[in-house]
Amino acid sequence: MNSLGSIFKVTSFGESHSAMVGCVLEGVPAGLVLDIEKIQQAVDKRKTNQTNFSSTRNEEDVVEMVSGVFEQKTLGTPICILIKNKDARSQDYDSLKQVYRPSHADYTYEQKYGFRDHRGGGRSSFRITAPLVAAGEIAHQFIQHYFSIEVNAYVSQIGTVALPENETLHWSDIDKNEFRCPHAATALKMQALVEETRLAGDTLGGVISCQIKNMPVGIGEPIFGKLNAQLAQAMMSINTVKGFEYGDGFANAALKGSESNDLFEFVDGKMKTKSNHSGGIQGGISNGEDVFFRVAFKPISSIQQPQETLNQANEKQTVHINGRHDVCAVPRAVPVVIAYANMVLADLLLHSKIKKS
Amino acid sequence: MNSLGSIFKVTSFGESHSAMVGCVLEGVPAGLVLDIEKIQQAVDKRKTNQTNFSSTRNEEDVVEMVSGVFEQKTLGTPICILIKNKDARSQDYDSLKQVYRPSHADYTYEQKYGFRDHRGGGRSSFRITAPLVAAGEIAHQFIQHYFSIEVNAYVSQIGTVALPENETLHWSDIDKNEFRCPHAATALKMQALVEETRLAGDTLGGVISCQIKNMPVGIGEPIFGKLNAQLAQAMMSINTVKGFEYGDGFANAALKGSESNDLFEFVDGKMKTKSNHSGGIQGGISNGEDVFFRVAFKPISSIQQPQETLNQANEKQTVHINGRHDVCAVPRAVPVVIAYANMVLADLLLHSKIKKS
Amino acid sequence: MNSLGSIFKVTSFGESHSAMVGCVLEGVPAGLVLDIEKIQQAVDKRKTNQTNFSSTRNEEDVVEMVSGVFEQKTLGTPICILIKNKDARSQDYDSLKQVYRPSHADYTYEQKYGFRDHRGGGRSSFRITAPLVAAGEIAHQFIQHYFSIEVNAYVSQIGTVALPENETLHWSDIDKNEFRCPHAATALKMQALVEETRLAGDTLGGVISCQIKNMPVGIGEPIFGKLNAQLAQAMMSINTVKGFEYGDGFANAALKGSESNDLFEFVDGKMKTKSNHSGGIQGGISNGEDVFFRVAFKPISSIQQPQETLNQANEKQTVHINGRHDVCAVPRAVPVVIAYANMVLADLLLHSKIKKS
Amino acid sequence: MNSLGSIFKVTSFGESHSAMVGCVLEGVPAGLVLDIEKIQQAVDKRKTNQTNFSSTRNEEDVVEMVSGVFEQKTLGTPICILIKNKDARSQDYDSLKQVYRPSHADYTYEQKYGFRDHRGGGRSSFRITAPLVAAGEIAHQFIQHYFSIEVNAYVSQIGTVALPENETLHWSDIDKNEFRCPHAATALKMQALVEETRLAGDTLGGVISCQIKNMPVGIGEPIFGKLNAQLAQAMMSINTVKGFEYGDGFANAALKGSESNDLFEFVDGKMKTKSNHSGGIQGGISNGEDVFFRVAFKPISSIQQPQETLNQANEKQTVHINGRHDVCAVPRAVPVVIAYANMVLADLLLHSKIKKS
Repeated sequence: MNSLGSIFKVTSFGESHSAMVGCVLEGVPAGLVLDIEKIQQAVDKRKTNQTNFSSTRNEEDVVEMVSGVFEQKTLGTPICILIKNKDARSQDYDSLKQVYRPSHADYTYEQKYGFRDHRGGGRSSFRITAPLVAAGEIAHQFIQHYFSIEVNAYVSQIGTVALPENETLHWSDIDKNEFRCPHAATALKMQALVEETRLAGDTLGGVISCQIKNMPVGIGEPIFGKLNAQLAQAMMSINTVKGFEYGDGFANAALKGSESNDLFEFVDGKMKTKSNHSGGIQGGISNGEDVFFRVAFKPISSIQQPQETLNQANEKQTVHINGRHDVCAVPRAVPVVIAYANMVLADLLLHSKIKKS
Repeated sequence: MNSLGSIFKVTSFGESHSAMVGCVLEGVPAGLVLDIEKIQQAVDKRKTNQTNFSSTRNEEDVVEMVSGVFEQKTLGTPICILIKNKDARSQDYDSLKQVYRPSHADYTYEQKYGFRDHRGGGRSSFRITAPLVAAGEIAHQFIQHYFSIEVNAYVSQIGTVALPENETLHWSDIDKNEFRCPHAATALKMQALVEETRLAGDTLGGVISCQIKNMPVGIGEPIFGKLNAQLAQAMMSINTVKGFEYGDGFANAALKGSESNDLFEFVDGKMKTKSNHSGGIQGGISNGEDVFFRVAFKPISSIQQPQETLNQANEKQTVHINGRHDVCAVPRAVPVVIAYANMVLADLLLHSKIKKS
Repeated sequence: MNSLGSIFKVTSFGESHSAMVGCVLEGVPAGLVLDIEKIQQAVDKRKTNQTNFSSTRNEEDVVEMVSGVFEQKTLGTPICILIKNKDARSQDYDSLKQVYRPSHADYTYEQKYGFRDHRGGGRSSFRITAPLVAAGEIAHQFIQHYFSIEVNAYVSQIGTVALPENETLHWSDIDKNEFRCPHAATALKMQALVEETRLAGDTLGGVISCQIKNMPVGIGEPIFGKLNAQLAQAMMSINTVKGFEYGDGFANAALKGSESNDLFEFVDGKMKTKSNHSGGIQGGISNGEDVFFRVAFKPISSIQQPQETLNQANEKQTVHINGRHDVCAVPRAVPVVIAYANMVLADLLLHSKIKKS
Repeated sequence: MNSLGSIFKVTSFGESHSAMVGCVLEGVPAGLVLDIEKIQQAVDKRKTNQTNFSSTRNEEDVVEMVSGVFEQKTLGTPICILIKNKDARSQDYDSLKQVYRPSHADYTYEQKYGFRDHRGGGRSSFRITAPLVAAGEIAHQFIQHYFSIEVNAYVSQIGTVALPENETLHWSDIDKNEFRCPHAATALKMQALVEETRLAGDTLGGVISCQIKNMPVGIGEPIFGKLNAQLAQAMMSINTVKGFEYGDGFANAALKGSESNDLFEFVDGKMKTKSNHSGGIQGGISNGEDVFFRVAFKPISSIQQPQETLNQANEKQTVHINGRHDVCAVPRAVPVVIAYANMVLADLLLHSKIKKS
C-alpha cells in the first residue's frame, strides 16, 4: 500500500536513512514537456529551512528523474524520481535504538515488522514526502496542460493561533512569511507562539486549508473513489495528520438542511450555487464550485524535553531526543498537501475523461 | 472505484431503483461458519424504521447470498450478496426528472455521465449501503473468529445537541433509544430537536463516534494504507459525510507536543500508553490502545420546504420534495460506520498476517 | 483474483450449483445503448446444445442485468449480470462427495480451501463462463460503438482432426456446423471422430483459433500489460486450456530472423507489413495488422469409462462419472474465447485512449 | 501495467538508454536475511557474455538496493533496485531515429505514444529485465526460506535443433555449456547452428522449458489468477516470447481423455498422480506434482542483413542494423524465465497462506 492513484499512480519507496528516497510515477501521458526547474522548486519548498521554527539540517534534496523522461519530455513510461539521503548521521540515533519515543512510530513499526531501521523515522519519516512532492508537481504540470484548475494551500492555524474568520485572503500573500499564512497579523502571532514554544522545548500542531479553483464539473468516482474520499485518504497518509473535513465539515453537523443546502443559480451563462457549504462536492463529484478542505496536524512528537518511556526490555527509561527537529512542521507540509491534492486530481481527471469521451 | 479493500475486498453495485442492490465480497477465508441470522439483523438495523425521525418506507431488505456459501460455510470463493429493491414507486420521482434538487447529486451525476436514473438517488442513494452492511457483518464474523476485536459506534451529536464531555458511556446503552445515543438525557434532547425540526420540514446532521476495542498491535499499512487513511476513505464514502478525525482530531492542532504525546507504561505485563490522544494509531499502525474516531454528517438535503432551484434548461423553478424522507439519517448510519470499520479491519488484518507470519 | 481488466473490469462470482452465477462489470461508459437481445444470443451460443457431441442438460441461462442499465442505456455504474442455476440436481453428484475424479479440480480445491462444494465443478465449472460471455458481448457492443474492430474465433482442431493448412477460410462458414469449424470437409471428419469417441465413452480436446480484424495501431500496455500477455492470461483462465500462442507461435522458434521479420510497406496510404508472422503485435502493442492467436484445450476429464482413483481416506476406488457431460467442449468454448478477447480489448482501448488524447 | 503480482508485487521502470533501469519490490516480508551476492550472480547470468552467440557489450549491471534493506535484512518496506545504464553510446542509434526497424517495437511505440526514445529499444529493450531478475532472486530467497520449492529452466530448442524426447536430463548439466542446454550432444548441434547463423548475419529463436519441483498443493487462485494464467502472463511479457504451454500443452489437444487423465495413487504416504499430463496444475491450482511449462521465443529481429523498410515519412529505405546484437538471446532469457516464475510463485504463496491459515 505504497501507492496512490490507479491510472496516474505513484509508488513510494525509501526510508529516512536508506541510500535514497524516491517514487515511481506511472500514467503520465507521453509528450508532456516538463519544467524541471519548477519540480525542484516544489521540493525545495518542503525542505527544512533556516528559520527558527524548523530544523536546521541542510537537506539538499536534488531531484533526479532517471527514467521516463527524454529530452525533457515524458515518454509515457514510468518516471522514477530519486532523492539521495546525503545527511545520514545515524550515530545521532544510536541512543534511540532500544527505546520507544512517545507518540512516535518506533513501537508500532517494531511490533508490526519485528525489526526496524532505528535511524530516524525510517519509513515513517516526513522525509519520504520529498519525492512525492516532485511527483505532485508533475501532476500539476499535467493538469495545467489541459485545464485551468489551480490548487493552493495555506496555514490557517498554528497551535492556538488561528486565522480570524471571514477575512478575505489572497493567495499572493501565502509565501510572504515563513508560516505560509496569508494574513500578516496572524503570522506575527504565530511567530511569537513558535518562538515561545521553541524556548520551552515544546512543539506545535496546526491546520492547513486547501482550495481548488476552476474545478470542472464531474470529477470524482462513486462510491469509494469519491473526490472527498480520495482527498481524505491522501491527506490522512501525511505524517501527523489527525483530521480531514471539506466544505463546512464538522460545523455542518450543527446546521439544518435549510441552512446548509446550496441553492442553484444561473449566472453569466453558468450553473452556480449561491453558497458553498458543500465545498464544491456533491455525491462525491465536483459541482464546479471551489473545492475547499481542511487538514488537522498534531504537534510533532519529538519534543526537546525529557520524557518517561519504556525500552525494548519494557523497562522505564527517560528519553532525551537530541536530533535537530522542527518546532512546527505544519508550514513545511503545505507543499505536501498541494502535491497530494494535485495527484488525486490528476488521477480522477484521467478517470473522468474515459467516462465522458 | 466501487471497491473497498484489496484482499478482503468488497465491490458494490446497484442503484436505488434498479432491480437490486448488492455487492461481491472476495477474500473471505474458506470454512468460516456464517451466522446468517446476524447478517440479516445487521442490515435490519440500518433500515428505515417506524419512528418519527426517519422515513416510513417499508424496505424489507432480505439478504440473499447467492454464491460462495455452501451449507452455511464460506467456500473461499466470492460471496455475492443481493437485496431486491421491492418498493420502486418511481412515479414519485417523475416531477424531479428535469430538475436539480439543491445539494443533491442530481446535477453532478448528470454532468459526469450525461445521463442518470432520476428515480431517487440512483447510485448516490444511501440504499446502496444495505448490502455493504451485510458484507461488514461477514467481516465482523471473520474477525471474531480469530481475534477479540470489537467495533461499536454511537451517535454523539444531532444538530446542536451533543453528548456532554467526559461522561462515562456504556455500549449497552447505545440501542436503548432510537437515536443510538448511549446517554438517556441527551437522547431526550435529540428527540425534542428532531420533532421540532420535522414539524418545520427541515433536516438535521450529526456526528457518529466509533470505538474499536482489543486492537492487536501492528495493524495498518504504510504509507497510503495507514489504518487512519483507510478508515477515513471508507467513512468519507458514506453519504453526507463531511469530516473525519481520529484520536484528539482537530482539537489536537491546538495542543502542544508535551500535552499530546502519549507516554508508554508497562501495566499487567503489557505495553500501554497513559493517555490516548493518538486514538490508538501511531504512524498509521495500531498501538494496541482503543482506536477512536469521529465522523461528521451534514443534514440530508431533502427538506420538506419549497426551494428555489434550476432545471435542465437552466430555468428557475421551485422544487417540492414530496417523497418519504428522513429528518435525520445519522442514527441509521451507525451500522454503516460499524460495517465499514469492520471491513477495513478485516482487510488490514489479512495484510498484517502476511507480514508477521 | 476473480477480476479481469482494470478500467473495463469484470468480477466473476458463482459456483456451478450455487443459486446463481454472475459477474459485475465496471467501467462501461455511460449512455451506451445496449442490444439486450444480442447479449442473450451470445450466452446461448455457449450453452449445452442438443447435438450428440455435447451434454443434454437444458440450461436456460436467462441473462438478467440487475443494475447499471436504465431504459436499455448504461448508467456508467457497475452492471451486475445474473444467471440462475436452475438445474441443480445435486444428488447426481452425491457419489462423488468423497472421491477425487482424475484430472478434475476436486483434489486441488479441497486441498486449497479445506472444504468444497462437491456438486459438480463448483467454482471450477465451465458454467461460470456464462455471465462472462454476456459481459464480453457488452465489451463487443462498446467496441463496435467506437471502432470497427471485429473479433471472431473458430475450431481449427478437434482431437487429431485439424484444418488443412493454407485453406482460405470465411467467417460466414463458422456457424454452418455444430463444430464451429469453417471448413465443411474437416467438420465432417470431426463429426465422425466425435461420434466414435462418444461411443467409446471417451472425450476430445482441440484448438480454437481467434482472429481480430481492423485493429487500430497502438493497443497494448508495456510491460506486463502487453496485448499478448493480457490475451494469454485471459485465455489461460478458461477451463482446460493448456496452451496459448500468437502469430507464428511455437513454430516461430524454428525460423530465422530473416524469415520471420515482417517488412513494412506503404499500401493505399497505410503502413502495412508484407507478412504477419508477428500476429499483429510488436513489443506487446498492436501494429494494425490482424491479431491472430491459437488456444489449446485438453480433452475434458469426465470420461464415461470407469477410472481408478482415491477417495478422501486415500483408499483406492473406481469412479464412474455418470452425469451428463460433453464429449468435446471445444466448440462451446468459441464464444468464451471471443468474449474474453473482447473484454481484453475493451480494457486496453480505454487505457490507450488516455495515453493518446 | 508495469507491475507483476499483487502482494509480492514488482513495479518496473527504465529504458535501455535512460540513466537507470530498476524496479520497486513490495510485499517482501520483514526480517528476511538477503544473500546479496546471489542476487548479483543471478543478474550476471542474464548479462551479455563474451561468447560468440551473444552481444559483446560490456554491461556491468551492478545491482544497488537503495531502500527496504537494512543490515542485509528486509525491513518489510519497498525495496528499490537500481542498475545504472553505463554504456549509452546513443550515437550508434542516430541512423535509426527516423526509421522503423522491421519486427521491432519502433513503429508501435511511436504510434502509441507519439514520441519515443529511439536510442535502442527504449522501454521495449530486453535490458529492463535485469533488475527484475534481481527481484526474482529475492523472491527465490523468500520462497527458499519457507518452502523447499525449486525452480529451474533450460534451453530445449534453438532454431531447428531441439532436445531429443524422453532423454533423462539433469539440472546440474544446464550450465555446462553456454546454451544452457542440459544435453551435451544437443548443445554441440546448437553451437554449430549458431555459428553458421552468425556468419549469415541472421538470428535464431528457441524454446525454454521450465520445471518447478517440490510444489506444495493448493497454490493458484481461481479464476483469473490461476497458476497457469499467472505464469502465462508473466512469460508473455518477456521480449520476443510467442507462445506458452504447460503440461502436455498443444500436444494435449490431440489426446483422448482416457489418455490424458492423470490417475491418482497413494505412494509413500502421499497422494500422487501416475502420470503428469497436467503439468502439476488442475483447475489452475497446483496438485503437488512438478509444474512444467514451455516458452517459445521468436528470433530477435535485429539481423545483420540489409532490410527494406519505411521511415517516418513513409518512404522506402534500406536499414542496416549495426549495433552489437545477439544471434540468439534465448540462453540469456533462462534466468529471466526463472526469475519471473519465482515472482509468480512468491505472490501466489502469500495469497494461499491467507486462505489456509
